[in-house]
Amino acid sequence: MRAHSGFLEVLEATIEGPGDEQFVRTIVRHPGAVTVVPVLGDAPDVLLVRQYRAAVGTEILEAPAGKRDVDGEAPDETARRELEEEVAHRAGRLEWLGECYTSPGFCDEYAYLYAAFDLTPLDAPSAATAEEAVMTVERVLLAAVDDLIAHRELVDATTIVGLLLTRALLTGSVPAGA
Amino acid sequence: MRAHSGFLEVLEATIEGPGDEQFVRTIVRHPGAVTVVPVLGDAPDVLLVRQYRAAVGTEILEAPAGKRDVDGEAPDETARRELEEEVAHRAGRLEWLGECYTSPGFCDEYAYLYAAFDLTPLDAPSAATAEEAVMTVERVLLAAVDDLIAHRELVDATTIVGLLLTRALLTGSVPAGA
Repeated sequence: MRAHSGFLEVLEATIEGPGDEQFVRTIVRHPGAVTVVPVLGDAPDVLLVRQYRAAVGTEILEAPAGKRDVDGEAPDETARRELEEEVAHRAGRLEWLGECYTSPGFCDEYAYLYAAFDLTPLDAPSAATAEEAVMTVERVLLAAVDDLIAHRELVDATTIVGLLLTRALLTGSVPAGA
Repeated sequence: MRAHSGFLEVLEATIEGPGDEQFVRTIVRHPGAVTVVPVLGDAPDVLLVRQYRAAVGTEILEAPAGKRDVDGEAPDETARRELEEEVAHRAGRLEWLGECYTSPGFCDEYAYLYAAFDLTPLDAPSAATAEEAVMTVERVLLAAVDDLIAHRELVDATTIVGLLLTRALLTGSVPAGA
């Protein structure tokens, strides 16, 4: 089996085991993604978006994010673009937080995570997708993150990673020069 | 398009937009997963596994994890089973950390995250898959997590979420009764 669907490719790969055995694994190829946490004010607050996700059939609260589907666009450029499209802010400064595979057991999606500071509001979001046209922006206290996770109000993996690493960055527990 | 491959189902869904428009999204259905962070000693340390992931073509350092592919098995039972299969320890106590979609833009995989305490070593891991038969166990200081993320040595999303939430749990920043 090998199939393309939208931005995904699904294939079955035969893997060599440690002995002579072979085994088959289903693999989904993904273009990669960025997630960016916009930080505002001294509290500080963060800007999140609530949007309908067809794959899970419900609305989810997420940090601005997007696929790396523009040829030649560096991940930090994609982060800046998604910030403008989804929450209508321009970033004066981006800080790299980390990188992760979202589900490496079957998919090669690799996400770059940033925090965005020194934000300047734009007139209006420049929505590029149907989802972006109807998403709503919510301003949330970064200090409320643990409570939102505990109450299953934050259930997106890269959003949670981004928020927890943004807090670690701001409280100084991330090694300097990372 | 609608295809099954291994434990995944890939389909194209037509979504109604806010106006009259319709748009198509590729959706991958996944049985769900658990990730469990085994905590040892007073430092404390955590037990991670290094395993080859065919989807990304390399070895990754991860917390013990597995799919929810046993009918009727509750997620905490799956967590206990994976702990025995992958790092050969039995948990005296599991603490729920949170839950997350790994990549809700295209996939409904939903992961339950736990920390495991009061661990008892078993004689040998009871590997259930080809990957488990060759994975190696590594004992890592929980305090080293920020550094490992900053150096891209921890790049699995639910592992990072699990480790950061385990630390928050142990330092008391998670709301009581969550």
